[in-house]
Amino acid sequence: MTTLLDNSPHTGAMNYADSVQKIPAACVSTNDAEAISAALKSERSVKVHLTLSCETLPDVESANVVGEIPGSEMKEDVIVMGGHLDSWDVGQGAHDDGAGVVQSVEALRLLKQMGLRPKRTIRVVLFMNEENGLRGGLGYAEKVRPGEHPIAAIETDAGGLSPRGFGVGDSAAYAKILRWAPVFRPIGGDRITLGGGGADIGPLGRKGAVTIGLSVDSHRYFDYHHSENDTFDKVNERELELGAAMIAMLAYMISQEGL
Amino acid sequence: MTTLLDNSPHTGAMNYADSVQKIPAACVSTNDAEAISAALKSERSVKVHLTLSCETLPDVESANVVGEIPGSEMKEDVIVMGGHLDSWDVGQGAHDDGAGVVQSVEALRLLKQMGLRPKRTIRVVLFMNEENGLRGGLGYAEKVRPGEHPIAAIETDAGGLSPRGFGVGDSAAYAKILRWAPVFRPIGGDRITLGGGGADIGPLGRKGAVTIGLSVDSHRYFDYHHSENDTFDKVNERELELGAAMIAMLAYMISQEGL
Repeated sequence: MTTLLDNSPHTGAMNYADSVQKIPAACVSTNDAEAISAALKSERSVKVHLTLSCETLPDVESANVVGEIPGSEMKEDVIVMGGHLDSWDVGQGAHDDGAGVVQSVEALRLLKQMGLRPKRTIRVVLFMNEENGLRGGLGYAEKVRPGEHPIAAIETDAGGLSPRGFGVGDSAAYAKILRWAPVFRPIGGDRITLGGGGADIGPLGRKGAVTIGLSVDSHRYFDYHHSENDTFDKVNERELELGAAMIAMLAYMISQEGL
Repeated sequence: MTTLLDNSPHTGAMNYADSVQKIPAACVSTNDAEAISAALKSERSVKVHLTLSCETLPDVESANVVGEIPGSEMKEDVIVMGGHLDSWDVGQGAHDDGAGVVQSVEALRLLKQMGLRPKRTIRVVLFMNEENGLRGGLGYAEKVRPGEHPIAAIETDAGGLSPRGFGVGDSAAYAKILRWAPVFRPIGGDRITLGGGGADIGPLGRKGAVTIGLSVDSHRYFDYHHSENDTFDKVNERELELGAAMIAMLAYMISQEGL
Protein backbone atom coordinates (compact mmCIF):
# COMPACT_ATOMS: atom_id res chain seq x y z
CA MET A 1 0.00 0.00 0.00
CA THR A 2 2.86 2.39 0.72
CA THR A 3 6.63 2.66 0.34
CA LEU A 4 6.79 4.67 3.56
CA LEU A 5 8.48 3.14 6.60
CA ASP A 6 6.98 4.61 9.75
CA ASN A 7 5.30 3.75 13.05
CA SER A 8 1.75 4.54 11.97
CA PRO A 9 -0.39 1.45 11.26
CA HIS A 10 -2.57 1.65 8.15
CA THR A 11 -6.03 0.72 9.43
CA GLY A 12 -9.10 -0.46 7.56
CA ALA A 13 -11.97 -2.92 7.53
CA MET A 14 -11.54 -6.68 7.94
CA ASN A 15 -13.93 -9.22 6.40
CA TYR A 16 -14.25 -12.98 6.88
CA ALA A 17 -15.59 -15.61 4.54
CA ASP A 18 -18.56 -17.36 6.21
CA SER A 19 -16.78 -20.70 6.00
CA VAL A 20 -13.78 -19.75 8.15
CA GLN A 21 -13.40 -19.34 11.89
CA LYS A 22 -13.14 -15.67 12.85
CA ILE A 23 -9.82 -14.94 14.51
CA PRO A 24 -8.80 -11.50 15.77
CA ALA A 25 -6.85 -9.39 13.26
CA ALA A 26 -4.90 -6.19 13.71
CA CYS A 27 -2.67 -4.08 11.53
CA VAL A 28 0.89 -3.14 12.46
CA SER A 29 3.05 -0.32 11.15
CA THR A 30 5.56 -0.90 8.36
CA ASN A 31 8.44 -0.43 10.83
CA ASP A 32 6.92 -3.04 13.15
CA ALA A 33 6.31 -5.40 10.25
CA GLU A 34 9.97 -5.08 9.24
CA ALA A 35 11.06 -5.74 12.85
CA ILE A 36 8.81 -8.81 13.17
CA SER A 37 10.00 -10.06 9.79
CA ALA A 38 13.67 -9.60 10.81
CA ALA A 39 13.06 -11.35 14.16
CA LEU A 40 11.38 -14.29 12.40
CA LYS A 41 14.52 -14.77 10.32
CA SER A 42 16.59 -15.48 13.44
CA GLU A 43 14.00 -16.87 15.86
CA ARG A 44 11.74 -19.90 15.53
CA SER A 45 8.81 -17.96 16.97
CA VAL A 46 8.17 -14.34 17.87
CA LYS A 47 5.83 -13.13 20.58
CA VAL A 48 4.14 -9.77 19.98
CA HIS A 49 2.29 -7.74 22.59
CA LEU A 50 -0.63 -5.84 21.02
CA THR A 51 -2.92 -3.38 22.79
CA LEU A 52 -6.16 -2.89 20.87
CA SER A 53 -8.53 -0.16 22.01
CA CYS A 54 -11.05 -0.44 19.19
CA GLU A 55 -14.70 -1.18 19.93
CA THR A 56 -18.04 -1.02 18.15
CA LEU A 57 -20.33 1.58 19.67
CA PRO A 58 -24.12 1.74 19.26
CA ASP A 59 -25.44 3.42 16.11
CA VAL A 60 -26.48 7.05 16.33
CA GLU A 61 -28.61 9.04 13.92
CA SER A 62 -26.72 11.13 11.40
CA ALA A 63 -27.38 12.76 8.03
CA ASN A 64 -26.04 13.60 4.59
CA VAL A 65 -25.57 17.29 3.83
CA VAL A 66 -27.09 18.48 0.55
CA GLY A 67 -27.01 21.77 -1.39
CA GLU A 68 -27.77 22.60 -5.02
CA ILE A 69 -28.14 25.03 -7.87
CA PRO A 70 -31.51 24.11 -9.42
CA GLY A 71 -31.49 23.52 -13.17
CA SER A 72 -32.94 26.38 -15.23
CA GLU A 73 -34.44 24.12 -17.91
CA MET A 74 -34.30 20.47 -16.83
CA LYS A 75 -34.62 20.72 -13.09
CA GLU A 76 -35.40 17.01 -12.65
CA ASP A 77 -32.13 15.97 -14.29
CA VAL A 78 -29.63 15.95 -11.43
CA ILE A 79 -25.84 15.84 -11.46
CA VAL A 80 -24.45 14.91 -8.05
CA MET A 81 -20.96 15.94 -6.92
CA GLY A 82 -19.78 14.59 -3.61
CA GLY A 83 -17.41 13.09 -1.10
CA HIS A 84 -17.90 11.68 2.38
CA LEU A 85 -18.07 13.47 5.72
CA ASP A 86 -16.88 10.66 7.96
CA SER A 87 -13.31 9.44 8.27
CA TRP A 88 -11.38 6.62 9.86
CA ASP A 89 -10.66 7.19 13.56
CA VAL A 90 -6.90 7.75 13.16
CA GLY A 91 -5.50 11.01 11.78
CA GLN A 92 -7.79 13.84 10.73
CA GLY A 93 -9.26 12.34 7.56
CA ALA A 94 -7.78 15.29 5.67
CA HIS A 95 -7.28 13.46 2.36
CA ASP A 96 -9.92 10.77 3.06
CA ASP A 97 -12.20 12.50 2.58
CA GLY A 98 -12.02 16.02 3.96
CA ALA A 99 -10.47 17.01 0.64
CA GLY A 100 -13.41 15.58 -1.33
CA VAL A 101 -15.92 17.40 0.88
CA VAL A 102 -14.12 20.72 0.44
CA GLN A 103 -13.74 20.20 -3.31
CA SER A 104 -17.43 19.40 -3.79
CA VAL A 105 -18.57 22.50 -1.89
CA GLU A 106 -15.93 24.59 -3.68
CA ALA A 107 -17.06 23.34 -7.09
CA LEU A 108 -20.61 24.56 -6.41
CA ARG A 109 -19.29 27.84 -4.97
CA LEU A 110 -17.22 28.42 -8.12
CA LEU A 111 -20.26 27.93 -10.37
CA LYS A 112 -22.29 30.30 -8.20
CA GLN A 113 -19.50 32.91 -8.07
CA MET A 114 -19.29 32.87 -11.86
CA GLY A 115 -23.03 33.48 -12.08
CA LEU A 116 -23.58 30.39 -14.25
CA ARG A 117 -27.14 29.10 -14.62
CA PRO A 118 -26.87 25.35 -15.34
CA LYS A 119 -29.66 23.88 -17.48
CA ARG A 120 -29.75 20.77 -15.28
CA THR A 121 -29.60 20.70 -11.47
CA ILE A 122 -26.11 20.48 -9.94
CA ARG A 123 -26.24 19.13 -6.41
CA VAL A 124 -23.53 18.66 -3.80
CA VAL A 125 -24.06 15.64 -1.57
CA LEU A 126 -21.76 15.15 1.41
CA PHE A 127 -22.31 11.52 2.30
CA MET A 128 -22.29 10.28 5.88
CA ASN A 129 -20.77 6.97 6.94
CA GLU A 130 -18.87 5.78 3.90
CA GLU A 131 -16.20 4.03 5.95
CA ASN A 132 -18.43 1.83 8.04
CA GLY A 133 -21.28 0.58 5.90
CA LEU A 134 -22.00 3.16 3.21
CA ARG A 135 -25.24 4.19 4.90
CA GLY A 136 -25.23 7.74 3.47
CA GLY A 137 -24.76 6.56 -0.10
CA LEU A 138 -27.37 3.81 0.27
CA GLY A 139 -29.81 6.16 2.02
CA TYR A 140 -29.44 8.89 -0.59
CA ALA A 141 -30.08 6.49 -3.49
CA GLU A 142 -33.12 4.98 -1.72
CA LYS A 143 -34.73 8.37 -1.29
CA VAL A 144 -34.40 9.67 -4.86
CA ARG A 145 -37.76 11.40 -5.46
CA PRO A 146 -40.09 9.88 -8.09
CA GLY A 147 -39.76 11.96 -11.25
CA GLU A 148 -36.16 12.94 -10.51
CA HIS A 149 -33.47 11.57 -12.86
CA PRO A 150 -30.00 11.14 -11.35
CA ILE A 151 -28.07 11.38 -14.63
CA ALA A 152 -24.52 11.57 -13.31
CA ALA A 153 -22.66 11.31 -10.01
CA ILE A 154 -19.11 12.57 -9.64
CA GLU A 155 -17.20 11.40 -6.57
CA THR A 156 -13.93 12.81 -5.25
CA ASP A 157 -12.57 10.28 -2.77
CA ALA A 158 -9.04 9.56 -3.95
CA GLY A 159 -7.29 12.28 -1.93
CA GLY A 160 -6.90 15.98 -2.63
CA LEU A 161 -3.87 15.34 -4.81
CA SER A 162 -2.91 16.72 -8.22
CA PRO A 163 -5.79 15.91 -10.61
CA ARG A 164 -5.10 13.70 -13.61
CA GLY A 165 -8.53 13.13 -15.14
CA PHE A 166 -11.76 11.25 -14.68
CA GLY A 167 -12.70 7.58 -14.63
CA VAL A 168 -16.12 7.15 -16.23
CA GLY A 169 -18.27 4.12 -15.44
CA ASP A 170 -20.26 3.94 -18.66
CA SER A 171 -18.86 3.49 -22.17
CA ALA A 172 -21.16 5.92 -24.02
CA ALA A 173 -20.57 8.63 -21.41
CA TYR A 174 -16.85 7.82 -21.52
CA ALA A 175 -16.77 8.43 -25.28
CA LYS A 176 -18.53 11.76 -24.80
CA ILE A 177 -16.31 13.00 -21.96
CA LEU A 178 -13.21 11.85 -23.85
CA ARG A 179 -14.10 14.41 -26.53
CA TRP A 180 -14.10 17.09 -23.82
CA ALA A 181 -10.58 16.12 -22.64
CA PRO A 182 -8.83 19.16 -24.21
CA VAL A 183 -10.78 21.40 -21.80
CA PHE A 184 -9.01 19.72 -18.87
CA ARG A 185 -5.54 19.74 -20.47
CA PRO A 186 -4.32 23.07 -19.02
CA ILE A 187 -4.90 21.60 -15.54
CA GLY A 188 -3.11 18.38 -16.53
CA GLY A 189 -6.37 16.49 -16.01
CA ASP A 190 -7.09 15.23 -19.51
CA ARG A 191 -6.61 11.52 -18.82
CA ILE A 192 -10.15 10.17 -19.29
CA THR A 193 -10.42 6.44 -18.61
CA LEU A 194 -13.21 3.91 -18.85
CA GLY A 195 -14.38 2.55 -15.51
CA GLY A 196 -14.77 4.55 -12.38
CA GLY A 197 -16.94 5.99 -9.70
CA GLY A 198 -16.66 5.72 -5.95
CA ALA A 199 -18.18 3.87 -3.02
CA ASP A 200 -20.76 6.52 -2.12
CA ILE A 201 -22.17 6.83 -5.63
CA GLY A 202 -22.32 3.11 -6.38
CA PRO A 203 -25.96 2.86 -5.17
CA LEU A 204 -26.87 5.86 -7.32
CA GLY A 205 -25.27 4.13 -10.29
CA ARG A 206 -27.75 1.29 -9.84
CA LYS A 207 -30.49 3.95 -10.13
CA GLY A 208 -29.21 4.91 -13.60
CA ALA A 209 -26.64 7.63 -12.88
CA VAL A 210 -23.35 7.52 -14.77
CA THR A 211 -20.74 7.18 -12.04
CA ILE A 212 -17.57 9.23 -12.44
CA GLY A 213 -14.53 9.44 -10.18
CA LEU A 214 -11.96 12.24 -10.09
CA SER A 215 -8.61 10.57 -10.60
CA VAL A 216 -5.46 12.04 -9.11
CA ASP A 217 -1.74 11.50 -8.94
CA SER A 218 -2.00 8.67 -6.45
CA HIS A 219 1.56 7.69 -5.51
CA ARG A 220 1.44 9.44 -2.14
CA TYR A 221 -2.14 8.53 -1.22
CA PHE A 222 -1.42 5.40 0.78
CA ASP A 223 1.32 7.19 2.71
CA TYR A 224 -1.61 9.06 4.33
CA HIS A 225 -4.78 6.98 3.87
CA HIS A 226 -6.37 5.47 7.03
CA SER A 227 -3.38 6.36 9.17
CA GLU A 228 -2.22 9.00 11.65
CA ASN A 229 -0.47 10.63 8.67
CA ASP A 230 -3.75 11.78 7.09
CA THR A 231 -3.53 15.32 8.42
CA PHE A 232 -4.30 18.77 7.04
CA ASP A 233 -0.64 19.69 6.44
CA LYS A 234 -0.38 16.91 3.82
CA VAL A 235 -2.91 18.65 1.57
CA ASN A 236 -1.49 21.09 -0.96
CA GLU A 237 -3.83 24.02 -1.47
CA ARG A 238 -3.21 24.38 -5.18
CA GLU A 239 -3.62 20.66 -5.90
CA LEU A 240 -6.89 20.73 -3.93
CA GLU A 241 -8.18 23.76 -5.85
CA LEU A 242 -7.33 22.29 -9.24
CA GLY A 243 -9.41 19.21 -8.39
CA ALA A 244 -12.36 21.42 -7.42
CA ALA A 245 -12.02 23.29 -10.72
CA MET A 246 -12.04 19.97 -12.62
CA ILE A 247 -15.28 18.89 -10.93
CA ALA A 248 -16.95 22.27 -11.46
CA MET A 249 -16.05 22.19 -15.16
CA LEU A 250 -17.29 18.64 -15.70
CA ALA A 251 -20.53 19.13 -13.75
CA TYR A 252 -21.31 22.30 -15.72
CA MET A 253 -20.59 20.68 -19.07
CA ILE A 254 -22.84 17.73 -18.24
CA SER A 255 -25.53 20.16 -17.09
CA GLN A 256 -25.42 21.92 -20.48
CA GLU A 257 -24.77 19.00 -22.81
CA GLY A 258 -26.25 15.99 -21.03
CA LEU A 259 -24.55 12.62 -21.09
CA MET B 1 6.20 30.78 -5.72
CA THR B 2 4.26 28.82 -3.11
CA THR B 3 0.83 28.74 -1.47
CA LEU B 4 2.46 27.57 1.79
CA LEU B 5 2.42 29.88 4.79
CA ASP B 6 5.40 29.09 7.02
CA ASN B 7 8.44 30.57 8.71
CA SER B 8 11.01 29.33 6.22
CA PRO B 9 12.30 32.01 3.82
CA HIS B 10 12.65 30.95 0.19
CA THR B 11 16.20 31.93 -0.69
CA GLY B 12 17.84 32.43 -4.07
CA ALA B 13 20.19 34.59 -6.09
CA MET B 14 19.85 38.37 -6.41
CA ASN B 15 21.00 40.30 -9.47
CA TYR B 16 21.31 44.02 -10.11
CA ALA B 17 21.15 45.97 -13.36
CA ASP B 18 24.44 47.82 -13.85
CA SER B 19 22.62 51.15 -13.93
CA VAL B 20 21.16 50.92 -10.40
CA GLN B 21 22.74 51.41 -6.99
CA LYS B 22 23.17 48.09 -5.21
CA ILE B 23 21.18 47.98 -1.99
CA PRO B 24 21.11 45.00 0.37
CA ALA B 25 18.30 42.52 -0.29
CA ALA B 26 16.99 39.66 1.82
CA CYS B 27 14.09 37.27 1.61
CA VAL B 28 11.54 36.82 4.38
CA SER B 29 9.18 33.92 5.04
CA THR B 30 5.57 34.00 3.83
CA ASN B 31 4.36 34.33 7.45
CA ASP B 32 6.70 37.29 8.01
CA ALA B 33 5.62 38.85 4.72
CA GLU B 34 1.97 38.57 5.79
CA ALA B 35 2.82 40.11 9.17
CA ILE B 36 4.73 43.02 7.59
CA SER B 37 1.92 43.50 5.09
CA ALA B 38 -0.70 43.56 7.87
CA ALA B 39 1.40 45.98 9.93
CA LEU B 40 1.78 48.32 6.94
CA LYS B 41 -2.01 48.52 6.65
CA SER B 42 -2.28 50.06 10.12
CA GLU B 43 1.10 51.81 10.52
CA ARG B 44 2.70 54.50 8.35
CA SER B 45 6.06 52.76 8.54
CA VAL B 46 7.29 49.43 9.86
CA LYS B 47 10.76 48.74 11.23
CA VAL B 48 12.11 45.23 10.69
CA HIS B 49 15.15 43.75 12.41
CA LEU B 50 17.00 41.35 10.11
CA THR B 51 20.00 39.22 11.03
CA LEU B 52 21.86 38.07 7.92
CA SER B 53 24.66 35.55 8.34
CA CYS B 54 25.39 34.98 4.65
CA GLU B 55 28.86 35.62 3.26
CA THR B 56 30.85 34.85 0.13
CA LEU B 57 33.76 32.53 0.86
CA PRO B 58 36.83 32.02 -1.34
CA ASP B 59 36.46 29.58 -4.24
CA VAL B 60 37.70 26.03 -3.72
CA GLU B 61 38.45 23.41 -6.32
CA SER B 62 35.69 20.92 -6.97
CA ALA B 63 34.66 18.51 -9.72
CA ASN B 64 31.83 16.99 -11.71
CA VAL B 65 31.27 13.25 -11.24
CA VAL B 66 31.01 11.20 -14.43
CA GLY B 67 30.17 7.58 -15.24
CA GLU B 68 29.06 5.89 -18.43
CA ILE B 69 28.09 2.83 -20.42
CA PRO B 70 30.17 3.14 -23.61
CA GLY B 71 28.21 2.81 -26.86
CA SER B 72 28.63 -0.52 -28.62
CA GLU B 73 28.42 0.94 -32.15
CA MET B 74 28.60 4.74 -32.05
CA LYS B 75 30.78 5.37 -29.03
CA GLU B 76 31.45 9.00 -29.94
CA ASP B 77 27.73 9.83 -29.91
CA VAL B 78 27.02 10.69 -26.29
CA ILE B 79 23.73 11.04 -24.43
CA VAL B 80 24.19 12.84 -21.12
CA MET B 81 21.80 12.34 -18.18
CA GLY B 82 22.36 14.49 -15.14
CA GLY B 83 21.49 16.72 -12.24
CA HIS B 84 23.58 18.86 -9.94
CA LEU B 85 25.52 17.91 -6.81
CA ASP B 86 25.43 21.23 -5.03
CA SER B 87 22.43 22.71 -3.25
CA TRP B 88 21.40 25.95 -1.63
CA ASP B 89 22.67 26.30 1.95
CA VAL B 90 19.26 25.93 3.63
CA GLY B 91 17.56 22.52 3.98
CA GLN B 92 19.19 19.40 2.60
CA GLY B 93 18.78 20.00 -1.12
CA ALA B 94 16.73 16.81 -1.25
CA HIS B 95 14.52 17.83 -4.19
CA ASP B 96 16.98 20.41 -5.57
CA ASP B 97 18.81 18.49 -6.70
CA GLY B 98 19.56 15.40 -4.62
CA ALA B 99 16.62 13.77 -6.37
CA GLY B 100 18.08 14.50 -9.81
CA VAL B 101 21.48 13.10 -8.82
CA VAL B 102 19.91 9.89 -7.49
CA GLN B 103 17.67 9.54 -10.55
CA SER B 104 20.56 9.96 -12.98
CA VAL B 105 22.67 7.32 -11.24
CA GLU B 106 19.65 5.04 -10.90
CA ALA B 107 18.80 5.38 -14.60
CA LEU B 108 22.29 4.13 -15.51
CA ARG B 109 22.09 1.36 -12.90
CA LEU B 110 18.76 0.19 -14.34
CA LEU B 111 20.22 -0.07 -17.85
CA LYS B 112 23.21 -1.99 -16.49
CA GLN B 113 21.05 -4.29 -14.37
CA MET B 114 18.94 -5.15 -17.43
CA GLY B 115 22.10 -6.02 -19.34
CA LEU B 116 21.29 -3.56 -22.15
CA ARG B 117 24.08 -2.62 -24.56
CA PRO B 118 23.27 0.84 -25.91
CA LYS B 119 24.51 1.58 -29.44
CA ARG B 120 25.48 5.12 -28.40
CA THR B 121 27.27 6.09 -25.17
CA ILE B 122 25.01 6.88 -22.20
CA ARG B 123 26.80 9.02 -19.65
CA VAL B 124 25.77 10.26 -16.23
CA VAL B 125 27.15 13.68 -15.35
CA LEU B 126 26.63 15.00 -11.83
CA PHE B 127 27.33 18.69 -12.24
CA MET B 128 29.05 20.75 -9.55
CA ASN B 129 28.02 24.30 -8.69
CA GLU B 130 24.80 24.88 -10.55
CA GLU B 131 23.42 27.21 -7.91
CA ASN B 132 26.25 29.67 -7.80
CA GLY B 133 27.56 30.22 -11.31
CA LEU B 134 26.98 27.03 -13.32
CA ARG B 135 30.69 26.19 -13.27
CA GLY B 136 30.18 22.45 -13.63
CA GLY B 137 27.90 22.78 -16.65
CA LEU B 138 30.18 25.35 -18.30
CA GLY B 139 33.30 23.32 -17.50
CA TYR B 140 31.84 20.09 -18.85
CA ALA B 141 30.78 21.71 -22.15
CA GLU B 142 34.19 23.39 -22.55
CA LYS B 143 36.02 20.10 -22.20
CA VAL B 144 34.03 18.01 -24.69
CA ARG B 145 36.73 15.97 -26.47
CA PRO B 146 37.33 16.66 -30.19
CA GLY B 147 35.58 13.91 -32.14
CA GLU B 148 32.91 13.39 -29.50
CA HIS B 149 29.32 14.34 -30.42
CA PRO B 150 27.06 15.35 -27.55
CA ILE B 151 23.78 14.48 -29.25
CA ALA B 152 21.38 14.84 -26.31
CA ALA B 153 21.43 15.99 -22.70
CA ILE B 154 18.62 15.09 -20.30
CA GLU B 155 18.46 17.07 -17.07
CA THR B 156 16.40 16.23 -14.01
CA ASP B 157 16.30 19.36 -11.86
CA ALA B 158 12.61 20.02 -11.25
CA GLY B 159 12.30 17.96 -8.04
CA GLY B 160 11.85 14.23 -7.53
CA LEU B 161 8.09 14.55 -7.99
CA SER B 162 5.65 12.48 -10.02
CA PRO B 163 6.87 12.51 -13.64
CA ARG B 164 4.60 14.01 -16.31
CA GLY B 165 6.76 13.98 -19.44
CA PHE B 166 9.68 15.68 -21.12
CA GLY B 167 10.28 19.17 -22.41
CA VAL B 168 12.39 18.98 -25.57
CA GLY B 169 14.46 21.97 -26.69
CA ASP B 170 14.54 21.25 -30.43
CA SER B 171 11.53 20.96 -32.74
CA ALA B 172 12.74 18.03 -34.88
CA ALA B 173 13.71 16.05 -31.77
CA TYR B 174 10.39 17.04 -30.18
CA ALA B 175 8.46 15.58 -33.12
CA LYS B 176 10.45 12.35 -32.82
CA ILE B 177 10.05 11.96 -29.04
CA LEU B 178 6.34 12.84 -29.33
CA ARG B 179 5.92 9.66 -31.41
CA TRP B 180 7.47 7.70 -28.51
CA ALA B 181 4.96 9.15 -26.01
CA PRO B 182 2.86 5.94 -25.70
CA VAL B 183 5.88 4.21 -24.13
CA PHE B 184 5.74 6.65 -21.23
CA ARG B 185 1.94 6.50 -20.82
CA PRO B 186 1.82 3.68 -18.20
CA ILE B 187 3.98 5.90 -15.95
CA GLY B 188 1.73 8.90 -16.64
CA GLY B 189 4.68 10.62 -18.29
CA ASP B 190 3.46 11.00 -21.87
CA ARG B 191 3.17 14.78 -21.92
CA ILE B 192 5.89 15.75 -24.40
CA THR B 193 6.24 19.50 -24.84
CA LEU B 194 8.36 21.72 -27.06
CA GLY B 195 10.95 23.75 -25.18
CA GLY B 196 13.01 22.49 -22.32
CA GLY B 197 16.31 21.61 -20.84
CA GLY B 198 17.93 22.75 -17.65
CA ALA B 199 20.60 25.14 -16.42
CA ASP B 200 23.45 22.61 -16.31
CA ILE B 201 22.92 21.39 -19.87
CA GLY B 202 22.44 24.82 -21.45
CA PRO B 203 26.15 25.12 -22.34
CA LEU B 204 26.05 21.61 -23.87
CA GLY B 205 23.06 22.72 -25.96
CA ARG B 206 25.26 25.40 -27.48
CA LYS B 207 27.64 22.58 -28.47
CA GLY B 208 24.86 20.92 -30.48
CA ALA B 209 23.18 18.61 -27.96
CA VAL B 210 19.39 18.49 -27.91
CA THR B 211 18.48 19.64 -24.40
CA ILE B 212 15.69 17.77 -22.65
CA GLY B 213 14.22 18.30 -19.19
CA LEU B 214 12.22 15.78 -17.18
CA SER B 215 8.95 17.51 -16.31
CA VAL B 216 7.09 16.63 -13.15
CA ASP B 217 3.93 17.45 -11.26
CA SER B 218 5.23 20.75 -9.99
CA HIS B 219 2.57 22.16 -7.67
CA ARG B 220 4.49 21.25 -4.49
CA TYR B 221 7.96 22.11 -5.75
CA PHE B 222 8.15 25.66 -4.47
CA ASP B 223 6.88 24.56 -1.06
CA TYR B 224 10.34 22.94 -0.76
CA HIS B 225 12.71 24.64 -3.21
CA HIS B 226 15.60 26.73 -1.74
CA SER B 227 14.13 26.57 1.77
CA GLU B 228 14.55 24.67 5.03
CA ASN B 229 11.64 22.49 3.81
CA ASP B 230 13.74 20.80 1.13
CA THR B 231 14.46 17.71 3.19
CA PHE B 232 14.64 13.98 2.48
CA ASP B 233 11.23 13.18 4.03
CA LYS B 234 9.52 15.29 1.32
CA VAL B 235 10.70 12.89 -1.39
CA ASN B 236 8.33 10.04 -2.21
CA GLU B 237 10.28 6.92 -3.13
CA ARG B 238 7.90 5.75 -5.83
CA GLU B 239 7.67 9.15 -7.50
CA LEU B 240 11.48 9.32 -7.49
CA GLU B 241 11.83 5.85 -9.01
CA LEU B 242 9.30 6.53 -11.76
CA GLY B 243 11.31 9.58 -12.81
CA ALA B 244 14.49 7.47 -12.97
CA ALA B 245 12.65 4.91 -15.11
CA MET B 246 11.49 7.67 -17.49
CA ILE B 247 15.07 8.91 -17.95
CA ALA B 248 16.46 5.40 -18.43
CA MET B 249 13.82 4.67 -21.08
CA LEU B 250 14.39 7.89 -22.99
CA ALA B 251 18.19 7.66 -22.89
CA TYR B 252 18.08 4.07 -24.15
CA MET B 253 15.66 4.92 -26.96
CA ILE B 254 17.84 7.81 -28.11
CA SER B 255 20.89 5.54 -27.92
CA GLN B 256 19.21 3.06 -30.27
CA GLU B 257 17.29 5.38 -32.59
CA GLY B 258 19.28 8.62 -32.54
CA LEU B 259 17.58 12.01 -32.55
